[in-house]
Amino acid sequence: MRIGELSRRSGIPLPTLKFYLREGLLPPGTLSARNQADYDDGHLRRLRLIRSLTEIGRLSLRSVKEVLDALDDPARSVHDLLGVAHHALGPPPLEKDDVVARARTEVDRYLRRRRGRVAAEAPARDVLAGALATLRRMGRPADVRVFDPYADAAERIARMEVSTIGGTTDRAWAVEQAVVGTVVFEAALVALRRLAQEHESAARFGRRRGPSRSLR
Amino acid sequence: MRIGELSRRSGIPLPTLKFYLREGLLPPGTLSARNQADYDDGHLRRLRLIRSLTEIGRLSLRSVKEVLDALDDPARSVHDLLGVAHHALGPPPLEKDDVVARARTEVDRYLRRRRGRVAAEAPARDVLAGALATLRRMGRPADVRVFDPYADAAERIARMEVSTIGGTTDRAWAVEQAVVGTVVFEAALVALRRLAQEHESAARFGRRRGPSRSLR
Repeated sequence: MRIGELSRRSGIPLPTLKFYLREGLLPPGTLSARNQADYDDGHLRRLRLIRSLTEIGRLSLRSVKEVLDALDDPARSVHDLLGVAHHALGPPPLEKDDVVARARTEVDRYLRRRRGRVAAEAPARDVLAGALATLRRMGRPADVRVFDPYADAAERIARMEVSTIGGTTDRAWAVEQAVVGTVVFEAALVALRRLAQEHESAARFGRRRGPSRSLR
Repeated sequence: MRIGELSRRSGIPLPTLKFYLREGLLPPGTLSARNQADYDDGHLRRLRLIRSLTEIGRLSLRSVKEVLDALDDPARSVHDLLGVAHHALGPPPLEKDDVVARARTEVDRYLRRRRGRVAAEAPARDVLAGALATLRRMGRPADVRVFDPYADAAERIARMEVSTIGGTTDRAWAVEQAVVGTVVFEAALVALRRLAQEHESAARFGRRRGPSRSLR
């Protein structure tokens, strides 16, 4: 298809497509007889992935480029790829004062104890360290094991999630699933926790309404 | 103590304190003999709560005022209070196109089925509807029950969490714990899930290194 149709079918404006081509995010089309570039379904899939990464993952174009470069490098395993995508989603490294630096050391030790193989530079390590430091600043007696019930829940969920990506050979699909899955279900998990808290709080502290009181 | 000492001990600049007094976020001090306002530990605690709400909860000052007004209203139960704080943390209501509106109806029905008492206006409902709508836009065959494992995990966690607030009579403390707990452990839960995903992905897709291969 010509670039106009690519724009129409992908819903991405022509100037944006040209920008993606110039930046190497989108591979060039094949030149047809009339010296016009011709695009195919591979280009559509690539655009869909870019869209997932930018709109759902909120990745910068620079991070998108990193993910796509990893995707196009056949030497990278699916695990490598997921790692690149994952880390691109993460917040930038934390500014580390003393409290945070100490918390980070404890988090690293904690993660080594709980499970083995997590990249040393995973941004989620900093997030945990920041959370621990905040608890301490707020005067909570926070040992790193305060994370235990959350880690248990997270491990159960991750086992289920990664098993659904299992066995794929379509690397682009795996990356898209990982990014969408991470971001969307993260939002859902957080929302469901708040709803469950509200329910529990109603059960404990709420005023009982007529019938339910008489039932107890 | 005088306002200068209040500023020093709370770490909050004098102009900010004066602003809080003007806006009614901080109750006025008692006038002492020399016609100077005198502040006490109650003011310090209130400032600490304001700080939690703005810095950790990232609440706007308008939302902070709502939470504090609820706190100062003795007719409000602890559950009411937690609800006000919780909803203040939530994202603003979603713009609802057709896909989102349909998703929201399904989410409401889903929540009724799973548990009873969640406020109809809880912002987390919109977050769930948005997540479901995104999955569908990305071409995933998403039934609302896709949330089941996350809801199971969320309910287990919330039961544990709310039980730790249980039985308190210090309303300000309860609100602070709820806000800090919600925001900080939300970040931790999300980070732990990403770390667990990375671990699972390494176990499934990663290249095995020397020794671990021979162990299998």
